[in-house]
Amino acid sequence: MNDPLLARFHAVIPAGGTGTRLWPLSRAAAPKFLHDLTGSGSTLIRATYDRLSPLAGERVMVVTGQAHGPAVRSQLPEISDLDLVLEAEPKDSAAAIGLAAAILFRRDPDTIMGSFAADQVIGPVEVFQEAVVEAVHAAAAGRIVTIGIHPTYPSTGFGYIRCGADLGVDGAPHAMHVIEFVEKPDEQVAKDYVESGEYLWNAGMFVAPVSLMLQHLRANEPELAAGVERIAAAWDTPERDAVAAEVWPSLPKIAIDYAVAEPAAAAGDVAVIPGHFTWDDVGDFAALGRLNPAADASGMTVIGDSARVYVDGASGIVVSDTRRVIALIGIEDVVIVDTPDALLVTTKDHAQQVKGAVEALKAHGETDVL
Amino acid sequence: MNDPLLARFHAVIPAGGTGTRLWPLSRAAAPKFLHDLTGSGSTLIRATYDRLSPLAGERVMVVTGQAHGPAVRSQLPEISDLDLVLEAEPKDSAAAIGLAAAILFRRDPDTIMGSFAADQVIGPVEVFQEAVVEAVHAAAAGRIVTIGIHPTYPSTGFGYIRCGADLGVDGAPHAMHVIEFVEKPDEQVAKDYVESGEYLWNAGMFVAPVSLMLQHLRANEPELAAGVERIAAAWDTPERDAVAAEVWPSLPKIAIDYAVAEPAAAAGDVAVIPGHFTWDDVGDFAALGRLNPAADASGMTVIGDSARVYVDGASGIVVSDTRRVIALIGIEDVVIVDTPDALLVTTKDHAQQVKGAVEALKAHGETDVL
Repeated sequence: MNDPLLARFHAVIPAGGTGTRLWPLSRAAAPKFLHDLTGSGSTLIRATYDRLSPLAGERVMVVTGQAHGPAVRSQLPEISDLDLVLEAEPKDSAAAIGLAAAILFRRDPDTIMGSFAADQVIGPVEVFQEAVVEAVHAAAAGRIVTIGIHPTYPSTGFGYIRCGADLGVDGAPHAMHVIEFVEKPDEQVAKDYVESGEYLWNAGMFVAPVSLMLQHLRANEPELAAGVERIAAAWDTPERDAVAAEVWPSLPKIAIDYAVAEPAAAAGDVAVIPGHFTWDDVGDFAALGRLNPAADASGMTVIGDSARVYVDGASGIVVSDTRRVIALIGIEDVVIVDTPDALLVTTKDHAQQVKGAVEALKAHGETDVL
Repeated sequence: MNDPLLARFHAVIPAGGTGTRLWPLSRAAAPKFLHDLTGSGSTLIRATYDRLSPLAGERVMVVTGQAHGPAVRSQLPEISDLDLVLEAEPKDSAAAIGLAAAILFRRDPDTIMGSFAADQVIGPVEVFQEAVVEAVHAAAAGRIVTIGIHPTYPSTGFGYIRCGADLGVDGAPHAMHVIEFVEKPDEQVAKDYVESGEYLWNAGMFVAPVSLMLQHLRANEPELAAGVERIAAAWDTPERDAVAAEVWPSLPKIAIDYAVAEPAAAAGDVAVIPGHFTWDDVGDFAALGRLNPAADASGMTVIGDSARVYVDGASGIVVSDTRRVIALIGIEDVVIVDTPDALLVTTKDHAQQVKGAVEALKAHGETDVL
């Protein structure tokens, strides 16, 4: 991409969350973004990087947990230490994205940041990239710009973005004003949203001038803003670790949606680019089945190079990172996740309940497998 | 038991078969009779021994595969080497029981043998033992005596015994002539059998004078009879191993039912004692569920001391000999068998199809887990 405005663009990849609904494949020590969940040969975070680097060049920052530093370095050797932000403890998205904004602001106050989660599956890549370029242009006009996904069904699992009038910015022909962000709706409301044509899915993607991000953060979460700016001041100095260790634990835990996006939308500062690419946040094993269609008529998807699976009258998905023989007989839409120390057996219809299992295991002290 | 006739009684426990329908719990290297499948604290073969030793004292012989010698010795330390018959290769039941009969005949031609498979679950033990004592009395009157199980439903999975007139032997008040043995019937025939009141299940239990067993074996399978008598002649001598190694592999493979029981019944030499005890040959995982009722209202049976099982809206049976955490969500009547190198996931309704899985795995060369 050779749009000159991209010289100001710096991609940020927040890589947090353990992907509890994908347990025991995804877990605290090996969250989902470190796995190749689509059979593409790339892990989710690697695919995210590869989607953004044609736009951002070497200007890609990753914000992740301290424990995942080595794995991220190994999967993304291009990332310099200056652009690898390691959190001593999880502080939700406002602290992660706010710190990235503050660091980037100190390096160059004209930077336009684009924040894209590490665990999303998107295609075609070119359509996504075109939307990002439009978003950068709209951001340069002084907006916080989200990319909203054109809904393909009335999902009750996502939040929605209500679109308003065209923004009318050069280089961003599809940009619209955002009237409001709305929480996950019930089914009837979701149907109404989709039929109206006025709503897009909120995929949590934000492109914005770092200065504008910080301005809204200061207005809504002054303590958080002051904290990340203090850490940012020390970031490219020898005091980085000491200051971060002192300040980070004290920061409030809040999502960027509440700390910035919603109040900024209320203030009329948010725009949206409609995204006509496919998008999946691989929220559960049912999603994994969708993203990995069965290779043959049997209707059974097997993920795992060394899996030895025997199937008789069964369909669904098997994820294996062991060498065990697995025999499946007579269950439709089954989900089997076979790991060395934990086994999940459920069905696609119950994929959302995996989170409850993890919570119950935690309550029972089975933390060694979480 | 102090019936004086029991001084002539010698129990024989054929312990063969791998229990393919219980794979991967039961397998070639660790067949089902070596497992505690009922949660009683005893393995199936240990429970079989404990059921018979009050009748037979130390006169209990086990016939099993060479590979299982160490496990049987460990589980039944009371068995002397003279009474542990190890087969170099499986030869079906006629060779196993015939060799036992021939060895016992050479030690004492008046011996009454009783053959009881190693993998059956029976109760109450006292009711079983009373039936055996009657069978010994009927055998002493010159019969091959089977113990037939009073059918509790029209099973199509068992063969049946058609009973005739009372035998009229002292000490065996319930003994009847056997008119014929019949193969596994279809459902309608099974219903007719059960309604008639004339049929019992054939549980493969035989009590007979060893001389009479050998007489029928010689008449019907002369080559087999000559072979086992040659091995028996060398059994209690230093030549045992050499002769067994030479002769055993040449013996025909045939079930005792065809080699002795059916022709003897046609000759009018077979009697039956009706058994009013419960009896299960633990043929598949559905049987395992019946024998191990769920401990609580959840309807989930867990077998395995160290299993860590989390259940949400699921019922059925989990057999685990690993330390893995197992989470089960939303499947009714599920069957999970979790072993270090193989995993089975199916339902109780499909329990019989496990055999097909094992055959398919064999055909695919996955013999390391069979």
